[in-house]
Amino acid sequence: MQIGRVLKSVWATKKDEQLNGLKFMTVSLRDTEMIAVDMVGAGVGDTVLITFGSSARKLSGYNIDAVICGIIDKIDNE
Amino acid sequence: MQIGRVLKSVWATKKDEQLNGLKFMTVSLRDTEMIAVDMVGAGVGDTVLITFGSSARKLSGYNIDAVICGIIDKIDNE
Amino acid sequence: MQIGRVLKSVWATKKDEQLNGLKFMTVSLRDTEMIAVDMVGAGVGDTVLITFGSSARKLSGYNIDAVICGIIDKIDNE
Amino acid sequence: MQIGRVLKSVWATKKDEQLNGLKFMTVSLRDTEMIAVDMVGAGVGDTVLITFGSSARKLSGYNIDAVICGIIDKIDNE
Amino acid sequence: MQIGRVLKSVWATKKDEQLNGLKFMTVSLRDTEMIAVDMVGAGVGDTVLITFGSSARKLSGYNIDAVICGIIDKIDNE
Repeated sequence: MQIGRVLKSVWATKKDEQLNGLKFMTVSLRDTEMIAVDMVGAGVGDTVLITFGSSARKLSGYNIDAVICGIIDKIDNE
Repeated sequence: MQIGRVLKSVWATKKDEQLNGLKFMTVSLRDTEMIAVDMVGAGVGDTVLITFGSSARKLSGYNIDAVICGIIDKIDNE
Repeated sequence: MQIGRVLKSVWATKKDEQLNGLKFMTVSLRDTEMIAVDMVGAGVGDTVLITFGSSARKLSGYNIDAVICGIIDKIDNE
Repeated sequence: MQIGRVLKSVWATKKDEQLNGLKFMTVSLRDTEMIAVDMVGAGVGDTVLITFGSSARKLSGYNIDAVICGIIDKIDNE
Repeated sequence: MQIGRVLKSVWATKKDEQLNGLKFMTVSLRDTEMIAVDMVGAGVGDTVLITFGSSARKLSGYNIDAVICGIIDKIDNE
């Protein structure tokens, strides 16, 4: 799982119908940028927890490979 | 999921018969180039949404690992 | 599977309910940092064994993609 | 999916019996080299289409993670 | 699948009980080092074939993501 930061919203009118209704957002992830589907009401600027692969598929119930599944409050030394 | 740009068409006469009828295209993806199967009628030059792995397999119904599943209209600050 | 070192704890109050009760930790992994779920009582500073992908999902029984599944005692020439 | 070039044949007498009879080949892939199983009669020097992960497993029917599933004839602007 | 070289043995007394009895080894892989489970009696210094992801899981029958599944004898031009 990765720590990401939500950057922008993605608009794709023409898409596979299995993806209708999903909220796609760009996220920065270390030194790159990718797209994840938000499942927790994340907004631009939030630091988020992102899950990938078949776990993203199973967690969301959609055929996608990256899901924003948590909003990170803090990261500390326990 | 990644943001890609459609570059070219790929022709492979000799291929596993499970792949017959699919439309393979090269896409640029950050600093690399790979092949994805188009499911939404994407054309050369389009900015597209690409899904990978088992989600690409499940979304398309084919044993492939990268699918063009949306055409991106715009990316903005919500 | 990767060798990682446990860095910090991650707090995410707002998250998908499927993830409730899990212990998220940041781990350093070669030259990067990511998040894994601890299944073996690992603490900050421990050198750990991390499994990814569908194996992490199956091993933990949760829809996550990275699991701390062992604490490494030593690595030697057999 | 990736575009690769077939480099050499790989010989491994001692291997898991589930892998008996498969034709392993090294392929160059961007700036790296890896091993894939040939399913289409590819030869050294061919430019090929390679599929990975669970799709390679399902396409081939073997527990492998990379399959040569097509021989690329040409790549053009449609 | 990747070509790796077996480096060392890994000892992890405290681990998920699903992993009991497995033989973990570090392997060098291009410019990095990771851990794989040996299924073919590989020893330190051997050049090996490594499979990843769900194929490693299925091939071994364990929830792991990297398996040493062959010992490479030679790699040549067919």
